[in-house]
Amino acid sequence: MRMPFLPDLLPASSGEEITRGFLQELVNILFTYICKSSQRSSKTQGELTLCLHQLIFCLTLTDAFPGHPRFFNQLSSGLDVIGTAAEWLISTANTNMFTYEVSPVFILMEEVLLRKMQSIVGWSSGEGDGIFCPGGTISNLYSILVARYHFYPEVKTRGMGVLPQLGIFTSEHSHYSVKKSAAVLGLGTENVVVVKCDERWVRKMIPAELESSIVTAQEKGLVPFYVNATAGTTVYGAFDPLDAIADICHRHSLWMHVDAAWGGGLLMSDRHRMKLQGIERAWSVTWNPHKMMGVPLQCSAILVKKRGLLRQCNELGAEYLFQADKHYDVSYDTGDKSIQCGRHVDAFKLWLMWKAKGSQGFGAQVDKCLENAEYLYDQLQRRTGFELVYKNKPEHSNVCFWYTPPSLRGLPLGPDRDTRLHQVAPQIKGRMMEKGSVLIGYQPLGAKVNFFRCVFSNPATQQEDIDFLLDEIIRLGHDL
Amino acid sequence: MRMPFLPDLLPASSGEEITRGFLQELVNILFTYICKSSQRSSKTQGELTLCLHQLIFCLTLTDAFPGHPRFFNQLSSGLDVIGTAAEWLISTANTNMFTYEVSPVFILMEEVLLRKMQSIVGWSSGEGDGIFCPGGTISNLYSILVARYHFYPEVKTRGMGVLPQLGIFTSEHSHYSVKKSAAVLGLGTENVVVVKCDERWVRKMIPAELESSIVTAQEKGLVPFYVNATAGTTVYGAFDPLDAIADICHRHSLWMHVDAAWGGGLLMSDRHRMKLQGIERAWSVTWNPHKMMGVPLQCSAILVKKRGLLRQCNELGAEYLFQADKHYDVSYDTGDKSIQCGRHVDAFKLWLMWKAKGSQGFGAQVDKCLENAEYLYDQLQRRTGFELVYKNKPEHSNVCFWYTPPSLRGLPLGPDRDTRLHQVAPQIKGRMMEKGSVLIGYQPLGAKVNFFRCVFSNPATQQEDIDFLLDEIIRLGHDL
Repeated sequence: MRMPFLPDLLPASSGEEITRGFLQELVNILFTYICKSSQRSSKTQGELTLCLHQLIFCLTLTDAFPGHPRFFNQLSSGLDVIGTAAEWLISTANTNMFTYEVSPVFILMEEVLLRKMQSIVGWSSGEGDGIFCPGGTISNLYSILVARYHFYPEVKTRGMGVLPQLGIFTSEHSHYSVKKSAAVLGLGTENVVVVKCDERWVRKMIPAELESSIVTAQEKGLVPFYVNATAGTTVYGAFDPLDAIADICHRHSLWMHVDAAWGGGLLMSDRHRMKLQGIERAWSVTWNPHKMMGVPLQCSAILVKKRGLLRQCNELGAEYLFQADKHYDVSYDTGDKSIQCGRHVDAFKLWLMWKAKGSQGFGAQVDKCLENAEYLYDQLQRRTGFELVYKNKPEHSNVCFWYTPPSLRGLPLGPDRDTRLHQVAPQIKGRMMEKGSVLIGYQPLGAKVNFFRCVFSNPATQQEDIDFLLDEIIRLGHDL
Repeated sequence: MRMPFLPDLLPASSGEEITRGFLQELVNILFTYICKSSQRSSKTQGELTLCLHQLIFCLTLTDAFPGHPRFFNQLSSGLDVIGTAAEWLISTANTNMFTYEVSPVFILMEEVLLRKMQSIVGWSSGEGDGIFCPGGTISNLYSILVARYHFYPEVKTRGMGVLPQLGIFTSEHSHYSVKKSAAVLGLGTENVVVVKCDERWVRKMIPAELESSIVTAQEKGLVPFYVNATAGTTVYGAFDPLDAIADICHRHSLWMHVDAAWGGGLLMSDRHRMKLQGIERAWSVTWNPHKMMGVPLQCSAILVKKRGLLRQCNELGAEYLFQADKHYDVSYDTGDKSIQCGRHVDAFKLWLMWKAKGSQGFGAQVDKCLENAEYLYDQLQRRTGFELVYKNKPEHSNVCFWYTPPSLRGLPLGPDRDTRLHQVAPQIKGRMMEKGSVLIGYQPLGAKVNFFRCVFSNPATQQEDIDFLLDEIIRLGHDL
């Protein structure tokens, strides 16, 4: 399996020709992959055969095609050619975000993007800070970390032992990263108070429930300090009422974070950005351009309203990196704002895509995905055998539904039918994976048995793909 | 700046041709960059002009060339063509590591690599767990997180409030990520006890100092639970005495972590791996293949000896990702071991490079870098005006030294000379950056004024580059 040519590749002297041949062969393969993953006739899990003949090397990868127009499995999908090109460039530059001296241009691009995103959130030009980091969970972790430091700066040196028992508030439909971060940061998952949502209608956090949870927690000896509002929940795509939550946070002097990892993309759309009304009142915001905006993985930003806080919270001033006597403005050495040391260049992908598409392009992409969701919502109501988990028109691109095979349709509602219906989605998904025609997620939630969750974030998806999905579910599930 | 061609790129129908043209143009540019960065006649900071003429788009990036054979600024340098090719492939696949269903092959590759690395560390086949994560700081954070959970599993749900005041031990030359993690995890930087090193000779943690620090900390009411030993310190490249530290950890029932982010690469070399003697006794190990092994950024692993602990510590079992009724063995859904949710595919770069070079190839690369360090060490002793910070032969590829310009050579040792010598390295570095001929880091440390730190991790560096570095320092600094 050793590649005999290896010593001849660059940086070997006169290695140009063989290196060019190697990369050219690779690019031909990748190009074929890109074409294949965008074709509807391909499977949603595909083979990528990496046969570099010239170099006596062959490998077949079998993985999902998140770029396929019929991949509805995850919040991030699609394959953006400009974003992919940017990632190729980043990996070739192979540099690191910790100091301005090694990445001056990338650092400045990150600053420009953060400012742009802050202004879209609605913060004034005098406020706002932030950093790109590896995923929305880490972004949410940053928000709690910074909030804790804001109220209790002594925690950095003295630890949680000198603090009261802190309490965090988040809705039952929020992402699990809030609890995960509470575990990591030493706050404890039990001290994450789960606030009820309006289950009958909108799946949004109920403001009155938040307020009463805060009061109850205080009575039990918890000290509330942080509220997470979700803009675009993972399963239902619901938007918490940000203005009402901001009022409560203001009244109780709590840090308000908005987890807009999934919903942040809607800020780019004139038609949909009102769903995030009130986000400008947040003290911090998580926004993942790698989800709704189609940037290649990973690209997530944590935005913090109060300038300087990120640095104060995280800086340790290691002298081997952050010398104060450097021959440039060291405020550009943004590495000490980070909980990482080395940091991958994630900002450039977003920067190049923004240059290419413009804000309008992103807006159009978002509109397209939400139109697809509405189309699916309409179809589900027209077709036999499908039932919406949630009757209202979707706010985001998530659409949740059951498929009931003919054999179950006559059964009375009750535990027996539930048990059988619970097995339908996994069985259909198993058949889908075997066939590779389409990929969609499912899960149970609360008392609800397994249902399908379709999410649209790939602008390449067309109505015909949605028709195909429903036809395919019937084809694969009608005999169950 | 909008690109007018954009709507014609894939996934647009019949977008193949224009997409191929776009990618081909990009690859030509990247290939030119790769050639340029490997040429000694290029600058160490370079321009990458991204002019996609066909597409009416032009951009000039000016950043450091970490791939340049005369880039000695950071622990990660070099540009490995196989690693870069792997990264191009990963970004084209654009998949995510959270579940087996979307990344079956990449998940299996990660498992294979983790097992391989565990066996190289010296753990038996019945033990060992781990995960790839975004950088050594996060890996070290994992080690403390898991250690805390091991001793106090209730911390996950109840938080630090119910725990005693915990103490961490690490040497004064260890990486700042230990303190950073202590701040993030809510332990507090003050509860990181800094253990003295042998300053006269080897810059290694003094085992007797560790033991007395543990006893003193206990007397002050701290509960010791975790010791970090460093295999390859950031500035000096020293290796802590792992066996002696393991004895102490065993005696006091403490978690022993080895931060081999920088030194782990030496395990690949038959000649140098004895420097990590005792690492097999560690309970966890950080090892960054993106440093000494030349894998493109980022590629870092945290290895944990006790199987299952990572998952128990971090799992929350979100049902929308980790359904137990999936139609495959869900133990391959490794995402819940992670503190991230989405996770970039970092393992494949290392996998492909390992296939290409073999263990021997990595070993030869490490040997080459250490030979370069020895050559520099010899030259520094022969040449006038240079002084080693540390007289012993380097153990790793770090070499630290002062350059004393002629005007300072007659001065008596003392504060006046120190003040002037302190300014020499920053001034020379400023001139280097302006000229772009070579890039090297500097820092003060303790009572020592600014000195140069040269690190070799790029196997393309030759002795002529080292001669050039010293000549250039004299050229740029002799008039100071």
